[in-house]
Amino acid sequence: MASEWDTHTSLTASRDGVFDAELDPGWTVGGGVNGGYLLGIVGKAVAETLPAKPHPLSVSAYYLSASRPGSAVVSTRVLREGGSVATVAAELGQEGTTRITALATYGDLGALPADVSTTAVEPTLPPIEECVPGSMAPEETRRIAPIMERFDMRFDPACVGWAMGAPSGRGHIQAWFRMVDGHDVDPVGLLMVCDALPPVTFDLGRPGWAPTLELTVHVRAVPAPGWLKVSHRTRNVAGGMFEEDCEVWDSAGRLVAQSRQLAMLPRA
Amino acid sequence: MASEWDTHTSLTASRDGVFDAELDPGWTVGGGVNGGYLLGIVGKAVAETLPAKPHPLSVSAYYLSASRPGSAVVSTRVLREGGSVATVAAELGQEGTTRITALATYGDLGALPADVSTTAVEPTLPPIEECVPGSMAPEETRRIAPIMERFDMRFDPACVGWAMGAPSGRGHIQAWFRMVDGHDVDPVGLLMVCDALPPVTFDLGRPGWAPTLELTVHVRAVPAPGWLKVSHRTRNVAGGMFEEDCEVWDSAGRLVAQSRQLAMLPRA
Repeated sequence: MASEWDTHTSLTASRDGVFDAELDPGWTVGGGVNGGYLLGIVGKAVAETLPAKPHPLSVSAYYLSASRPGSAVVSTRVLREGGSVATVAAELGQEGTTRITALATYGDLGALPADVSTTAVEPTLPPIEECVPGSMAPEETRRIAPIMERFDMRFDPACVGWAMGAPSGRGHIQAWFRMVDGHDVDPVGLLMVCDALPPVTFDLGRPGWAPTLELTVHVRAVPAPGWLKVSHRTRNVAGGMFEEDCEVWDSAGRLVAQSRQLAMLPRA
Repeated sequence: MASEWDTHTSLTASRDGVFDAELDPGWTVGGGVNGGYLLGIVGKAVAETLPAKPHPLSVSAYYLSASRPGSAVVSTRVLREGGSVATVAAELGQEGTTRITALATYGDLGALPADVSTTAVEPTLPPIEECVPGSMAPEETRRIAPIMERFDMRFDPACVGWAMGAPSGRGHIQAWFRMVDGHDVDPVGLLMVCDALPPVTFDLGRPGWAPTLELTVHVRAVPAPGWLKVSHRTRNVAGGMFEEDCEVWDSAGRLVAQSRQLAMLPRA
């Protein structure tokens, strides 16, 4: 059976390098379409144009205008294709307006050398059953954010005070993560996972929409099946903007994706 | 008097949004032109196309082929210009071949709110006179890397063991930094500073050229005059690649630029 992710990101090739997509309303937050979902759709279109290089190594997206549910067009243009990597420019538009523009380098993660030397520390999370499920969010929140229904998220109780009106102020949110239908996340899906948790500004007592200016994801390995650990942090809130660093670790304890975005601070 | 940086990055507008540049041989390492210098030239071209939005907020560059000293063409295309920010696509090419392709969002750093709430910790460096000047590098190194003559760098003695064949293995290099002619670095110049130090892999005992696949710089404030502190770290060396995170702090103790690049590990 097709996963919900595959269904919601299915593409129809219309002409060379151009694809029709349908942005599902199930991925909205406050009416706007989630940026990670959009990046996943763009990422899938790039993968379809590069059959021998199926995996994103690095994708950078600039968000130009808010997307709405409904039809969209993704156009891709190969800038350079070498032996092991290819770089592609891509755009997602609606009704002639560009929503996001992106650059991406793809390759084959399975063909990379096996060396791993990670000094980053895997997030420490209590056992899944001791974490706070996203499904416990108030009815009101879930109505505003249908995207929450896409995931099974179990938040670290130490980082979820914001849900009870008591944000820690540290700028840190982390959770266990998987798709609600239990399907595993593939490398293109990691582009979405890096923008799936609530903005880290929730933990700073600044809830609300944090519009992304730019998001770059580095995919470092094919994730092992099973639960992922996802961590968001910010360390520099200044000038009405903040950076959000996301790490995704797989069930084998490997750091499979690293991302950073620059976003606008929600209004106080 | 014009600074060396201004001279080496001077542009001649040839037609709408297109500029001629001359890549100076003084910015090479092992024959190739430094990626930060290239990004600075691209960044300057973008600034010239956006007079009311002079400062980079975010710039992402994908490196497609190695540049050589000599003439180059930078072409820019405004994708969206709003009230406070504009997003531009840019390419730098030589003899019809694209060297780097970039996306950039520009604005006016001076017009941003004054809030600063940084939990990142400013690098701790010994006083400048107790640090190791780049000019102490062996004659051989300096012949391979003319770029070193552009800067006055004073390396933290605790992070410079690699220069004596004893890398720390921590994946960390930090230094005091200024231009050799004493001119202050402006926001566009920060794009270059984020790729100016030796690759952090030197500190892992892997000297040599580390080709950049992707480099994103977030410029967070106009740097105060004077010495900068520059720090490079990596935490995930895997699959023959590594990420390099750079922070630039100004003399007022402000985190003025944050960057991350994905690069290829030098051959062992």
